[in-house]
Amino acid sequence: MNLADYIRDIPDFPKPGILFKDITPLLASPQAFGHAVDQMAAHYESHAIDAIAAAEARGFLIAAPLALRLNKPLVPLRKPGKLPYRTYSLKYDLEYGSAELQMHIDSVTPGARVLLVDDLLATGGTMAAGAQLIQQAGANIAGFGFLVELAFLNGRERLPQAAVYSLLTY
Amino acid sequence: MNLADYIRDIPDFPKPGILFKDITPLLASPQAFGHAVDQMAAHYESHAIDAIAAAEARGFLIAAPLALRLNKPLVPLRKPGKLPYRTYSLKYDLEYGSAELQMHIDSVTPGARVLLVDDLLATGGTMAAGAQLIQQAGANIAGFGFLVELAFLNGRERLPQAAVYSLLTY
Repeated sequence: MNLADYIRDIPDFPKPGILFKDITPLLASPQAFGHAVDQMAAHYESHAIDAIAAAEARGFLIAAPLALRLNKPLVPLRKPGKLPYRTYSLKYDLEYGSAELQMHIDSVTPGARVLLVDDLLATGGTMAAGAQLIQQAGANIAGFGFLVELAFLNGRERLPQAAVYSLLTY
Repeated sequence: MNLADYIRDIPDFPKPGILFKDITPLLASPQAFGHAVDQMAAHYESHAIDAIAAAEARGFLIAAPLALRLNKPLVPLRKPGKLPYRTYSLKYDLEYGSAELQMHIDSVTPGARVLLVDDLLATGGTMAAGAQLIQQAGANIAGFGFLVELAFLNGRERLPQAAVYSLLTY
């Protein structure tokens, strides 16, 4: 199965000149979606991982089935005001403006090895923030896993803490 | 296994007087999270379902593993500006202000039987909007499935199109 057949190019989204990689055709195919999760699980099952973290919203689509497949705790990283308990919080810069990511203070333990996953690696800003948040809690980054990587944006340069693994690279 | 042991009460979130049901302890336990998905899959595997839809972000946590378990397409319902292709769109009222939900126009086919799932049924506003969006596309509602239902808010009264099933009721 060629997973690339299930990624749709959308020109000029979210703004002119950007070719957006749309994963909804993959989500619409349980065979392709399942194959993607299987491949990622196969890659990470030999790694020492204590938890899997992902930022909302699309990161949850990969992290939830992967966490169940690998039998690991799932740590949600969310926008401000979404997590109800006490949180660690991190502001980070985007191309225009800034964003903030939060994590419950009891969601990782010091020394835990946390795998960060997302659907897509672009400039790496959100994942770099997620990694800092996990490190702020005293945990370690066990890896960065993506369905799709836009290699020409050099996002992996912003993720020096651990190896980056992607199922598809453009 | 008692799933209720994995739901944490957070008083006064998001505002004074609200007792928030926090599902992050459940996500942190692959046994409990897996059991919840198993239970929901067992309930729906005898139902005639063509696709599973869920609204971001927490709905994705339930819908993604459930869609893979039941081998069904996953249809993401998202906030405006998130889905890159052409969308159906629906504005709906919240307690304060309004919100909008979108769905790709090619994500359900007319006549398809679509199961809507979410982590929690409160007043039912978002799910009612999701159901209308699916009906707007000519598809039918096969059911509404929740991890947690806050029965005292009477959310199921706003979901007349199909049966409501919940793993935990408060």
